[in-house]
Amino acid sequence: MRLVVIGAVAAGLSAAARARRLDRQLDILVLEKGDAISYGACGLPYLVQNKVRHFSDLVVYSASYFQKERNIEVRTGAEVQEIEHGRRRLRLCSGEFIAYGKLIIATGARQDTGGIAGVDQPHVFSMNSPAAAVRLKQHLLGTKPGRAAVVGGGYIGLEAVEALRSYGWHVTLLHDGANLLHRDEPELTRRLLTHLDRFRVDTRLGCRVRTIHEKHIDGIACDLVVLATGLRPNVELAANAGIELGRTGAIRVSDHMETSFGGIYAAGDCAEAMHLVAGRPMWIPLGTTANKMGRVAGACAAGARERFAGIAGTSIVRVCGLAVALTGLSLPQAKAEGLRAVSAWVKTQDRAAYFQGRATEVELVADQSTGRLLGATVIGEHGVEGRINVVAAALQTRMRLDDFLQLDLAYAPPFAPVWDPLLIAAQQLQKQF
Amino acid sequence: MRLVVIGAVAAGLSAAARARRLDRQLDILVLEKGDAISYGACGLPYLVQNKVRHFSDLVVYSASYFQKERNIEVRTGAEVQEIEHGRRRLRLCSGEFIAYGKLIIATGARQDTGGIAGVDQPHVFSMNSPAAAVRLKQHLLGTKPGRAAVVGGGYIGLEAVEALRSYGWHVTLLHDGANLLHRDEPELTRRLLTHLDRFRVDTRLGCRVRTIHEKHIDGIACDLVVLATGLRPNVELAANAGIELGRTGAIRVSDHMETSFGGIYAAGDCAEAMHLVAGRPMWIPLGTTANKMGRVAGACAAGARERFAGIAGTSIVRVCGLAVALTGLSLPQAKAEGLRAVSAWVKTQDRAAYFQGRATEVELVADQSTGRLLGATVIGEHGVEGRINVVAAALQTRMRLDDFLQLDLAYAPPFAPVWDPLLIAAQQLQKQF
Repeated sequence: MRLVVIGAVAAGLSAAARARRLDRQLDILVLEKGDAISYGACGLPYLVQNKVRHFSDLVVYSASYFQKERNIEVRTGAEVQEIEHGRRRLRLCSGEFIAYGKLIIATGARQDTGGIAGVDQPHVFSMNSPAAAVRLKQHLLGTKPGRAAVVGGGYIGLEAVEALRSYGWHVTLLHDGANLLHRDEPELTRRLLTHLDRFRVDTRLGCRVRTIHEKHIDGIACDLVVLATGLRPNVELAANAGIELGRTGAIRVSDHMETSFGGIYAAGDCAEAMHLVAGRPMWIPLGTTANKMGRVAGACAAGARERFAGIAGTSIVRVCGLAVALTGLSLPQAKAEGLRAVSAWVKTQDRAAYFQGRATEVELVADQSTGRLLGATVIGEHGVEGRINVVAAALQTRMRLDDFLQLDLAYAPPFAPVWDPLLIAAQQLQKQF
Repeated sequence: MRLVVIGAVAAGLSAAARARRLDRQLDILVLEKGDAISYGACGLPYLVQNKVRHFSDLVVYSASYFQKERNIEVRTGAEVQEIEHGRRRLRLCSGEFIAYGKLIIATGARQDTGGIAGVDQPHVFSMNSPAAAVRLKQHLLGTKPGRAAVVGGGYIGLEAVEALRSYGWHVTLLHDGANLLHRDEPELTRRLLTHLDRFRVDTRLGCRVRTIHEKHIDGIACDLVVLATGLRPNVELAANAGIELGRTGAIRVSDHMETSFGGIYAAGDCAEAMHLVAGRPMWIPLGTTANKMGRVAGACAAGARERFAGIAGTSIVRVCGLAVALTGLSLPQAKAEGLRAVSAWVKTQDRAAYFQGRATEVELVADQSTGRLLGATVIGEHGVEGRINVVAAALQTRMRLDDFLQLDLAYAPPFAPVWDPLLIAAQQLQKQF
């Protein structure tokens, strides 16, 4: 039987590799419309920042590696035009037909510029593809710093701000929503604004960009624009074939990553995932999730019965040296889900004071009715990823605040204070119960 | 009613502070036999290393702070000679009697030199009290580096090795057991030996020291000796009063931290704690545990019904720049508990390779019969505390490996690889199921 995978980045190649591991006989073909495969897309902002020198440093495996070591054929420049599921075949843009037994759709997501006029001008850049990132990097390396505008205050926008500041550009950040990082959490936004202000970043919230002019946006002078306007799932191939989409607009999948068509799976940024706290599918495109979904899709396409448990919505971003991490639901998000949510923020030290402890902030959100933890925010310079991950693990097991308070976390002066910031936040939150 | 607390370091003062918070009327008296209170004992090795300049930097609160801000009387130099529970009073060494309504024993632990001869010589030091640590530090600051021996390969011994190496001393580490860190885990010991060897530390395992001579120990030349021979709980006061000890030799307590005598509680290094994985009481004296136990003892002594869930046995130590963290049971420990345990070690990178990822090692242990996670070891330079804490959280909820594999951990290139080392280890371990 032949398994065909559409897309050769995180989800697609995870799926293909996993399927091969479980079934040595399977004929596996991966189709990629672009010319780059198996690269760490999350590294593109750091390629721009020149923390990563060459795009090739982001590439994990080559097509010839997959052919030789995994017996997986990867074809680049192979764009699928139509899925003809009735005849179990794909039609490529080239006119070629490719038959499949099982199909995995890993078509990813693309930047959604939301109808902004003027995005095709030479001074408008993005970081959403290898070519785009390389183009921006070359421009930054070869140009005297001036005034830049970043459009969009999600994590890619904030990574763009960090990159531009590192080259010495003056940056204005334009964001259409009221809150940064696509997190309905005014307290987080307030803290981010304070931090950005230290880097002289001029942040404008509620600023919907309609037109990019040659020298300005809405009167704000800029010589260079980086678009980071958010993503939209690439679902057209699936939708045109009649595959069901979810309410989020991404492809609806079972916990085996199967679509509404038996034998067709979807994984990665084109698909929804069950949110473990909200208890309903959400679309939060991230590289980790894509890899995990791909792994399950590949296993199931190869005949195993694995399942993807879902996501806690965990993410982390570095913004001008500050780490900001989220998991679960924010307080306003939890309330919007109809939960009786309460939260506590604490500002404390990430290590013993006598061991160069630096300020860190932790917010925990819990359900006052059940005591269940619902989410967290962690901000700081050290140990942020570890602390958010502890909460992510707690969310996955539906841990109650009572039990969270009892966590036996590691302590020695070089690593943490004797009362970990997570436990201090939990103690504060407990006072509201 | 009067609450008397014996001991004014971690457990004792946590207990007193918590009791005050819950009951503003309570008469609270804390008795400390020494003259230092409320200090971070875990910081003493870093005082010796001169990472912490002055002992006063380790002191959190003064007795006058407790008196003024918390209305808690703390008396230093007040050593209790006997608990006369029948008459609800203590007899101090001074001859004074002190009446109590409720009593909390937080007498801590002391170094157990195990009958080694010659420990009172001027070239023999330890780090187990403020005075001892200051004496060693002054000696190191004022002496040309020579040959030192550290007796005992637990975490304090390894911290002593780091301190001595930082002053340029040649170090021989003598340990009576087969495995370092009091962890029955030969693989961990092997890795530690490799690391210590890089720092030219001559480690001798299975070496029981009987006599410390002026210029050598068992023929091993040394000008200076640091004793780190392990601890023994200070239970004599309790035992002489008839309070029951557990099989570990420490004071047996309920999950409300109550001893076998109603109204007398025990907390901290003198008491046992329920091990969440082994399911039986163990004695693992650590500052975090002492603080948590003290908090519960204080709450219960003040009339609340809080409980201490127990410990996962989580600890972390820095050894010559390397972080080594443990939680739960090692593979041999789990087998000794009668479990069908299996484990997997992985060596991988702590961040994306293109983001200066460094080697990190993770071992996960699980029960093949139930799939339940049992323990972990994490070794590395970055993110070690965060990763062990995720496993500690998983152990507390009796998480199965299946669920652990699904954890939605944070990822961005500055913080972690897209497949976290924990998940890679979990995938490896799953192959044994």
